[in-house]
Amino acid sequence: MIVGILSLVLGLGGLVFAMRLYKGIVRRPTGDELMTSIAAEIQLGAMTYLRAQYVKIGMFALVVAILLSVQHGFDTSLAFLLGALASAAAGLVGMYAATKANVRVTAAAREHGAGEALLVGFDGGAVMGLAVASFGLIGLGLLYSGLSSKLAVDPHSVSVIWGFSMGASSIALFARVGGGIFTKAADVGSDLVGKVEAGIPEDDPRNPGVIADNVGDNVGDIAGMGADIFESYVGAMVAAITLAATLTAAELTQYFGGDISRSMLLALPLTLALIGLLSSLVGIHGMNVFKKHGPERALAISETSAAAVFLLLTLLTMLVFGYSWSLFFAILAGNLAGVAIGRAAWYYTSSKPVTRITLASKTGPATNIITGLAVGLESCALPMLIIVLTIFIAHQTAGQYGIAIAAVGMLATAGVTMTIDASGPISDNAGGIAEMSHQPPEVRAITDELDAIGNTTAATGKGFAIGSAALTALALFVSYKQAVELAMGKPMAMDITEPRVIVGVLLGGMVILLAAAMTMSSVGRAAMEMVTEIRRQFREIPGLLQGTAKPDTARCVTISTDAALREMIPPGVLAVLSPVIVGFFFGPVALGGMLLGALLTGMTMALLMSNAGGAWDNAKKAIEAGKLEGSRKGGDAHAAAVIGDTVGDPFKDTSGPAMNILVKLLSIVSLILVPFIT
Amino acid sequence: MIVGILSLVLGLGGLVFAMRLYKGIVRRPTGDELMTSIAAEIQLGAMTYLRAQYVKIGMFALVVAILLSVQHGFDTSLAFLLGALASAAAGLVGMYAATKANVRVTAAAREHGAGEALLVGFDGGAVMGLAVASFGLIGLGLLYSGLSSKLAVDPHSVSVIWGFSMGASSIALFARVGGGIFTKAADVGSDLVGKVEAGIPEDDPRNPGVIADNVGDNVGDIAGMGADIFESYVGAMVAAITLAATLTAAELTQYFGGDISRSMLLALPLTLALIGLLSSLVGIHGMNVFKKHGPERALAISETSAAAVFLLLTLLTMLVFGYSWSLFFAILAGNLAGVAIGRAAWYYTSSKPVTRITLASKTGPATNIITGLAVGLESCALPMLIIVLTIFIAHQTAGQYGIAIAAVGMLATAGVTMTIDASGPISDNAGGIAEMSHQPPEVRAITDELDAIGNTTAATGKGFAIGSAALTALALFVSYKQAVELAMGKPMAMDITEPRVIVGVLLGGMVILLAAAMTMSSVGRAAMEMVTEIRRQFREIPGLLQGTAKPDTARCVTISTDAALREMIPPGVLAVLSPVIVGFFFGPVALGGMLLGALLTGMTMALLMSNAGGAWDNAKKAIEAGKLEGSRKGGDAHAAAVIGDTVGDPFKDTSGPAMNILVKLLSIVSLILVPFIT
Repeated sequence: MIVGILSLVLGLGGLVFAMRLYKGIVRRPTGDELMTSIAAEIQLGAMTYLRAQYVKIGMFALVVAILLSVQHGFDTSLAFLLGALASAAAGLVGMYAATKANVRVTAAAREHGAGEALLVGFDGGAVMGLAVASFGLIGLGLLYSGLSSKLAVDPHSVSVIWGFSMGASSIALFARVGGGIFTKAADVGSDLVGKVEAGIPEDDPRNPGVIADNVGDNVGDIAGMGADIFESYVGAMVAAITLAATLTAAELTQYFGGDISRSMLLALPLTLALIGLLSSLVGIHGMNVFKKHGPERALAISETSAAAVFLLLTLLTMLVFGYSWSLFFAILAGNLAGVAIGRAAWYYTSSKPVTRITLASKTGPATNIITGLAVGLESCALPMLIIVLTIFIAHQTAGQYGIAIAAVGMLATAGVTMTIDASGPISDNAGGIAEMSHQPPEVRAITDELDAIGNTTAATGKGFAIGSAALTALALFVSYKQAVELAMGKPMAMDITEPRVIVGVLLGGMVILLAAAMTMSSVGRAAMEMVTEIRRQFREIPGLLQGTAKPDTARCVTISTDAALREMIPPGVLAVLSPVIVGFFFGPVALGGMLLGALLTGMTMALLMSNAGGAWDNAKKAIEAGKLEGSRKGGDAHAAAVIGDTVGDPFKDTSGPAMNILVKLLSIVSLILVPFIT
Repeated sequence: MIVGILSLVLGLGGLVFAMRLYKGIVRRPTGDELMTSIAAEIQLGAMTYLRAQYVKIGMFALVVAILLSVQHGFDTSLAFLLGALASAAAGLVGMYAATKANVRVTAAAREHGAGEALLVGFDGGAVMGLAVASFGLIGLGLLYSGLSSKLAVDPHSVSVIWGFSMGASSIALFARVGGGIFTKAADVGSDLVGKVEAGIPEDDPRNPGVIADNVGDNVGDIAGMGADIFESYVGAMVAAITLAATLTAAELTQYFGGDISRSMLLALPLTLALIGLLSSLVGIHGMNVFKKHGPERALAISETSAAAVFLLLTLLTMLVFGYSWSLFFAILAGNLAGVAIGRAAWYYTSSKPVTRITLASKTGPATNIITGLAVGLESCALPMLIIVLTIFIAHQTAGQYGIAIAAVGMLATAGVTMTIDASGPISDNAGGIAEMSHQPPEVRAITDELDAIGNTTAATGKGFAIGSAALTALALFVSYKQAVELAMGKPMAMDITEPRVIVGVLLGGMVILLAAAMTMSSVGRAAMEMVTEIRRQFREIPGLLQGTAKPDTARCVTISTDAALREMIPPGVLAVLSPVIVGFFFGPVALGGMLLGALLTGMTMALLMSNAGGAWDNAKKAIEAGKLEGSRKGGDAHAAAVIGDTVGDPFKDTSGPAMNILVKLLSIVSLILVPFIT
């Protein structure tokens, strides 16, 4: 109860802090007229898309809400809408701030240099970071305040908070998939005609797709990523609360002796999130001081200091309130795993593996692609070992609750992690605006530097998103079993040699691969529409290539918008319906198998796609930077690397990220289904 | 006992028949002097490689045999060597005949036309097909004769036949991986320099890598594929025998009432293989009649008639010996599933999906690759649904034994399936020889036609290989659990929410992906060596490109040989050691999880890689055949399609096939490990 109210209060506090940051941003100058008008165009496109997306999701959400209220009761249905609203609000607020910040980063780079530009981008990202953490805390705090006394005595009451998590997941699914398709349709389409056919540079204002490309960074990498992390943040807590509520008295004693009460386990997830938000505020506010160490180190210090404060405060809190030591190790393992997986992703997308791809580009696109795929496959091993180790430690110390609380430990400082994630695409946009508004080279040098750092943090952030999604899905999967057993009133055996389990495992893998195929094809189709339109404009608008006429950029934004809104539906329907079908036809045992199969395939595909994509991108950049002897921008090796980068685009920004969402969504839909299939 | 002796007799009969076919082949003319000398060069290269490979595997096998004899006793060790020998013998005999047949196909095409050429290629393939089935029957028949009375009363004695299966798996691992690396190093290397850089056609005699490329077809697609099918053929039977031996009396009654005795279940697998070999002989011998229907239909009739005879004879046999109806449905399901998965693979590598890739080639290599990957991902769904359905039916009718017997049902007619598989690469070689020996266009038209059919059968064959590997691995996996429980004397729970299981599942997926990465990288490295050598020859041998000097083809064969023998070791060690490590450190429960994780990931990766690779290949061929409006050979779309095809090469012929082997090998190694980890 108290924890719930504290969560509400601190969540509101986080929003107030975000509002202060936002006001600080908009007070800053937006540069010259051209910059201002470009930025306005980007913002208009992004907000138009997001609104259209939310309207479409809103209709879906209403239908689900009605179904839920009929079957699960009004409370769950309300919680569902609350979860969807909270996620949407975080996305809207964060992206709005981001589209205000981008041009001001460019302006700051022009007026004050790198340090100030970094700070503006970081503050822009911090609005998203704080919005994610705060809306999550407020929503769950609200529910927890109302439920906590009931939860401690009636485990069945926990199903209400599943609604919240499912709301968050529904938004995330469409935001990630739709955003991913939008951004890559624009990016791939613009590149294919602009860079490859017309031979003009990236972000060239003559390219009709350039605004859509920049809009895409916002709706995909900022709003989409925010919804993804929000889903994990909420999902991890919901899983931990579910396990705390449904553990039998015997299990409680088995893992924690008599030391810890159920209420303490129930309160821990939100407590950690509270501490995490406080620590994130330290990391974010500290940036004013850290920035003097230069962009790259400053970001690292910000993140590390938040994590350190979090672990320290957690340890203190746990000592004060009498939690056992073992639990702290699960939290520590989860927190460190998040960092380690991020580092692993960073290694595969920027170190030796990238050099291998660069070298392979010398013999053409085929060897570039083969090497990139090999790197992607290889890159799965380390993160999987880290997850394995985390599961092992967490379970040793605190049983299945340990796995869930490790996930919470990983995600508690999401405020600062998300801040850094979101500041990358803001810098990317700032660079685009600098290019389009013909800023002098020294300005572009600064935005390029920030953009390069943004690429590193994006790789790390994607690794973190995958790791947290995997651990969250796992925690939800374990909760699923607990929920089924509670509903049936007896243990449920899900032995791996049981045919229903095997069937479920195979179907789980299948659904993930189908979704990956669908999203890849969607990008292909949408990019083709974009290509056709851009070619048409180059052909039909006289003087466009000479720079004497303006392209019809709005039309390209509309194409991406329509394509994304259309193409996000089939994978969404697949994700929501497949557990329903498996659950009803093959029963809860097969559905459990499905979750495991989806987890394995989803995690590996996400790692493969995201890391291969990032590595291809950086291999191209390395050649552009002259790091491959005997090759230069525009040469054969560079052309090969551009092809690899283009293949990597839907990998890393559409299909890969969609995998994260899917594994979590399947788990939460399965939880919701429990009462109907048992 | 009787079944064992019958197996021996019929196995020997199969070999006699194969010998007759072989004699028929070598009596045929080899064409002109140039053709004969080219064929001799290919044969020399292939046999040299195979011998070197077997010597290397022999050392590995000896070490394993010694370890086995220390731990498992002399019998198992002997069975292991017998299994390895049988697989090696089948590969050697089959490939020897294939390298005799290729040039005679060319000659027959020149002298007699398509029908006769088809027959020669088919007979060449039949030697391999019959060798696989016969050596399998002889080996298992021998063991079964000695063991059958013991098996019915002492389930522990079954571990001896695991040795046989492991012997077959060990050969298969190295033959598939080594052969796959050999063939693609030569193919990719020759294409990159020959087709792309020097602009000379495929199989051009001026290309120094051309002999190595043709050798590769034999060691990869014939010997490697043979070892793969042999492993499945043996593995499926071993799994069924294991389950028959280890089922508890209660389980026997549960699934079969009192109708079927343990001895009957023990005898069924070999009985089916016996009938299968007989039916294969019908299909093979019938080709003399079927050939009048034209190549494509003749092959289909041959396969279908063998399957029909098999099912009919099986039904009769089961009625006569009093087996219950239910078992027949499991066998039927398995047999039909093999056909259905083959058809699914055919669809994805030749129908609408290929057209999608062809169209995507218009916008360049990037969209070609993206579409190909999407097709590959999509192509996993149908085969997985078929396997799911088969598991479901088989288990409903006969429990876990049903799954194993379904696998046997799928593989019983391997004699004819393998015949058709092997005749494809023989025609491919025949085409190469025709090209290199400057045959007139009408001869090449015939070999091209046979080659095109070979591509279709190759796709179907690969689908079948994957489906049978999956079902076999699954049967071995179920046997593993049974074996562990027998060894521990109590049930073993492997619940999917148990952390050790989850850890195992993730590690299983990881090992598969690592092996895929290793083999991809191996091809990359080996192809680079080939590229360097071919470039050197073009540079240093005066008159080579003008056709006045001869290339040093032997050197290229040596490079492929050395690379394959070197690069096959690391994935081999990974495959053998990883279950040992997981078994010893995490115990039998985690090892069970590992098998399931490997099965899911291995099956999906095999399907993805094999089908995407086949589809890319055929998309390129479609453009060459003028099927893409506005594009022609040598144009931009064709160049894009060539890049896709090159990426697909290691996919479909190295890494993809290696997955089949891995999933089976992991299972059989785990079975062998049972006594040490329980």
